[in-house]
Amino acid sequence: MSPLDDPAVTPLRVAVLGAGTVGTEVLRLLEQQRDDLAHRVGARLQVIGISVRDRTKDRGDHVDPALLTEDPHALVREADLVVELMGGIEPARTLLLEAMAGGASVVTANKALLAQDGAELYEAADAAGVDLHFEAAVAGAIPLVRPIRESLAGDRIQRVLGIVNGTTNYILDAMTRTGAEFDEALASAQRLGYAEADPTADVEGLDAAAKASILASLAFHTRVGLQDVHCEGITSITADDIAAARRLGSVIKLLSIVERIDDEDLGERISARVYPAMIPATHPLASVSEAYNAVFVQADAAGSLMFYGQGAGGSPTASAVLGDLVSVARQRVHGGKGPGESNYASLPIAPIDELRNGFYVALTVDDQPGVLAAVAGILSSHGISIATIHQEPIGASPEAGGVAGRDVRARIGIVTHTAAESAMSTALDDLSTTAAVVAIDSVLRVEGE
Amino acid sequence: MSPLDDPAVTPLRVAVLGAGTVGTEVLRLLEQQRDDLAHRVGARLQVIGISVRDRTKDRGDHVDPALLTEDPHALVREADLVVELMGGIEPARTLLLEAMAGGASVVTANKALLAQDGAELYEAADAAGVDLHFEAAVAGAIPLVRPIRESLAGDRIQRVLGIVNGTTNYILDAMTRTGAEFDEALASAQRLGYAEADPTADVEGLDAAAKASILASLAFHTRVGLQDVHCEGITSITADDIAAARRLGSVIKLLSIVERIDDEDLGERISARVYPAMIPATHPLASVSEAYNAVFVQADAAGSLMFYGQGAGGSPTASAVLGDLVSVARQRVHGGKGPGESNYASLPIAPIDELRNGFYVALTVDDQPGVLAAVAGILSSHGISIATIHQEPIGASPEAGGVAGRDVRARIGIVTHTAAESAMSTALDDLSTTAAVVAIDSVLRVEGE
Repeated sequence: MSPLDDPAVTPLRVAVLGAGTVGTEVLRLLEQQRDDLAHRVGARLQVIGISVRDRTKDRGDHVDPALLTEDPHALVREADLVVELMGGIEPARTLLLEAMAGGASVVTANKALLAQDGAELYEAADAAGVDLHFEAAVAGAIPLVRPIRESLAGDRIQRVLGIVNGTTNYILDAMTRTGAEFDEALASAQRLGYAEADPTADVEGLDAAAKASILASLAFHTRVGLQDVHCEGITSITADDIAAARRLGSVIKLLSIVERIDDEDLGERISARVYPAMIPATHPLASVSEAYNAVFVQADAAGSLMFYGQGAGGSPTASAVLGDLVSVARQRVHGGKGPGESNYASLPIAPIDELRNGFYVALTVDDQPGVLAAVAGILSSHGISIATIHQEPIGASPEAGGVAGRDVRARIGIVTHTAAESAMSTALDDLSTTAAVVAIDSVLRVEGE
Repeated sequence: MSPLDDPAVTPLRVAVLGAGTVGTEVLRLLEQQRDDLAHRVGARLQVIGISVRDRTKDRGDHVDPALLTEDPHALVREADLVVELMGGIEPARTLLLEAMAGGASVVTANKALLAQDGAELYEAADAAGVDLHFEAAVAGAIPLVRPIRESLAGDRIQRVLGIVNGTTNYILDAMTRTGAEFDEALASAQRLGYAEADPTADVEGLDAAAKASILASLAFHTRVGLQDVHCEGITSITADDIAAARRLGSVIKLLSIVERIDDEDLGERISARVYPAMIPATHPLASVSEAYNAVFVQADAAGSLMFYGQGAGGSPTASAVLGDLVSVARQRVHGGKGPGESNYASLPIAPIDELRNGFYVALTVDDQPGVLAAVAGILSSHGISIATIHQEPIGASPEAGGVAGRDVRARIGIVTHTAAESAMSTALDDLSTTAAVVAIDSVLRVEGE
């Protein structure tokens, strides 16, 4: 007998916490695909309640008002499966801990919570013998958590590198397309719904860093929290930087990079970092536009894999949530437990100072004889060798301290060969105290070459 | 206590059937990563035997000669987990059935066996309560089976389209790069190890069709066997076709396409097909070169996803095998059972005749007044409208029946708008009996526009 008709098959009770864009879409798909999901799970999924902050708000056709509740604590006590889509740390954290302590398996899209309190959540899941799934927390609809956690479980991952924040990608894309400054591009992204009213988490790189911490934890079997991720956002990227990138045949993308580093003396360590970087315009990531995400995974045996798709939005995120929901529901019906935390490797985190990178450095200098030699000399004294250098006068203007018709300042753009981050850091200190250097305008990593 | 040291944790007994390129690499990785795998599984994986046809052959450092056996039947009876890498239908089929009947979970890379006897294998796994995993059977290292079977289990897949055979991709790539004819490109692929001595399964599209049947079964929850897949290979692709594609801004790729088709009258059906097609040179699949694979998955909520990586080779395939081995081993340790067959939808297969496509048709015609009008008239009479048409004289030669200095034959290349396969089929019958049409040189689908 099919699980749809068999009265002996008890439906699984599902609590949905949050009915925003993703929650509403999850509820719509649960309704629209109810028979399909019952077949795939082996039991019906019955939504027993939807917790919201305001029960009186209209939420469209797919949210049954009779199921709305403002008491999520009572709701999770009654559930077999809890889908958390509220976002934020509290009350999401307490509710998930209550749900798991009560024996419910949990699906969440909450990257900030996982990055901050992942260890506590995993321990609670383990103690209760329940599942904790979070495919939707990284790269929206793109299957990435499951492939890294399961498909590559027999391989050794070296590096995960990608674009995992759609908002910043949209903004950088707009700056590249239109020549706009950051503020204009952000305002346009906000008008179009690609950026939130408070864009901090996106533009400061925190959202990408939370995702990097999740990816690093999975890839390297090590606890990696948000505090372990070196994080730089895109707020200081200028139209000049974008133009310089174009001149160099590159584009600027906000990258999340997690990496295994083998060092003869220091042994095996890992690095997790988020920063805007110049990548060649011919690199596959360069053509990832607007709110799309793309992630490369390199592993010893598998080689290089790429995953591409929509990284955000109601439907794509709901797809990932429902995939997880079917998984945890199947485990309920068929017994057993999905993969839990794997942190046996406990590799140390290499500080950013100890890494090596190519750099792009833009300086404003006094346009006088010997400046270029001085700049090159400072870099060289720190063991940094120059790959390309470009100097052009800055149009004379009273602001620039110039005299009409005569250029007194110049812009120097330098691309270095691979150099130690620490060497670059002290070289920049030296440059900043060099009389002829008026300003260090930009420092960007160069990746993907 | 770690599972590495705890004497109470019994190792899982692993039988490896076949020690060719993939088998040897699986054994190497099992040895090299033994501690990591033990942590990830929760128990040690102990290889208890390796079945080969010839025990006396040297197999390198990672194959312990003491573990070699020529009696796979005895071996699988002793195993908890069986990894089948022999290929072919028998004895692989019987051995997997014996293994599962004896309570072992099974990992296989055998696409031909799954395409032919998948239903029987699934039923045996279900009856025995064991797992049957086969990530390596499709697209090598690329996680595709697990994402489709699990990550997208809460979504509705509309279409899976991609390049899943590296040998034919290598050959078409070489023809495009060098202008070579098929036979030359095949010979070069054989010399370089990209094609087997007997290339039939690859160049006739059978390998791609087996993979399409597996993908369709998973994506549409329907049993789809090899016989349900419309299959055309690349043996008739000529240097002329490649040149024509280039002139049209396209390239020729062997595509595997599985698709859900909604028809007002006929309801929901599915299609699975493999054929060489022209795709625009700007399409992401156009730049997939050599032995790489790339697959697009379109689903209602997730939108369009792309997966890219190495589709064959010892290491990439071994990575997929080991990911599955960790999964089935984890289920052994933690209880429960992974996803089994899901065929509840049982959708009917739409015959190729009932589909619609754009076409490229190349004809040799007598170069006389009215030929073009006759050809266009025949297409039009079958409701086929022409998108572009190109006519050029064929250089006069005795073979072509020409007189020096005078062209008597011409080549016509036509790209049609979307048309019914059945209409094209009857139009081609009519063209073949038209006096002025000397030969129908090529008929190719046009995809990806």
